[in-house]
Amino acid sequence: MTSPPTAPTAPPRRGRPGHDQAAVLGTAIDLFIRQGYDATSMADLAAALGLSKSSLYHHVPSKERLLELALDEALGELTAVVEAATAEGAAGTSYERLRRVVEDGVRLLVDHQPAVTLLLRVHGNTDVERAALERRRWVDDRLADLVAAAVAEGALRADLDPGLVSRLLFGMVNSLVEWYDVDGPVDVDQLAAAVVATALDGLAVGAPRSAPG
Amino acid sequence: MTSPPTAPTAPPRRGRPGHDQAAVLGTAIDLFIRQGYDATSMADLAAALGLSKSSLYHHVPSKERLLELALDEALGELTAVVEAATAEGAAGTSYERLRRVVEDGVRLLVDHQPAVTLLLRVHGNTDVERAALERRRWVDDRLADLVAAAVAEGALRADLDPGLVSRLLFGMVNSLVEWYDVDGPVDVDQLAAAVVATALDGLAVGAPRSAPG
Repeated sequence: MTSPPTAPTAPPRRGRPGHDQAAVLGTAIDLFIRQGYDATSMADLAAALGLSKSSLYHHVPSKERLLELALDEALGELTAVVEAATAEGAAGTSYERLRRVVEDGVRLLVDHQPAVTLLLRVHGNTDVERAALERRRWVDDRLADLVAAAVAEGALRADLDPGLVSRLLFGMVNSLVEWYDVDGPVDVDQLAAAVVATALDGLAVGAPRSAPG
Repeated sequence: MTSPPTAPTAPPRRGRPGHDQAAVLGTAIDLFIRQGYDATSMADLAAALGLSKSSLYHHVPSKERLLELALDEALGELTAVVEAATAEGAAGTSYERLRRVVEDGVRLLVDHQPAVTLLLRVHGNTDVERAALERRRWVDDRLADLVAAAVAEGALRADLDPGLVSRLLFGMVNSLVEWYDVDGPVDVDQLAAAVVATALDGLAVGAPRSAPG
């Protein structure tokens, strides 16, 4: 297994760290999602926070640094989930680990919905975005390998290309960012169970309808 | 069945219609996708087309009108596919019609990938976007009804909420816009078959692995 690409070295942070930066980051992510990263200026962000532009620059050096922090949040979590499922000596069959990574992926997405939403909208327009896409590709490749291992085990149907199946499976997971409302009627356990039931029980050769473990 | 909401009455078009407007629209959609609708100006579009701004305004009255044309393209096709599958007297069981609408949805998405991509990124910031979201909601409601009818028929597992299943199913279809390459190794027939196999064969109670019709 190859090592995941790491985040580029962060520039030194200016201003007060901690809570303040987290609040700035949360508002920035919301604005980036709502009106697009390119269309959002530091002046827009300062106005949304009720800060002057110079106070805002006290917290963060640039708009790009905010994007980088948001993408790091999503990618750090994603990488950890995928590493746990694909590390040598991880418990269970490949199929069981695939089910777990789908469930954990759903939970991760719900817990970090704004940051993941932003990650999924990144298209490589800047160095920061291209670095994020490279880390995302590492995640996608590991997931495709896990699908292929579950096929080789005989647990998943072998008549479909594992790369294609992996994209469809995690495409379904990713699509949750567009509509899932954590305060809505479907709780995260029901959601994770529905995704596994919808996508995996269809792929499993003769699998029982309920999860094996 | 309720009637689909129709597009708002179009303002009269200025300039030469036909091929020229189609070319302008195609370039506009590409720019809107690449850099975001809000961040794209008519000056950007004129530059991308190698036109002066005044020549561009000869073709289209506004940036918003281009967005409306793009969304109409996607929504017109989507509405037609869903109407064909849900009209009174449509052939086949609800389950068969659901399979067909998934396959037709995949083909539609591939044939109109840029316009559908744009539609899926619309978040209701303007009247044009809100009208598009309303039409999209009509489509989503019809699809959820079709899933519910297939459950009632006994063809789909009944332990999951039909609205949730519909969102997951078409979330998988919609996620194709993010990665599918019509010039890549997977042709549209393989793609449609893989989506149906991945999502529906998992939902079908005791369904055979191959499509029933």
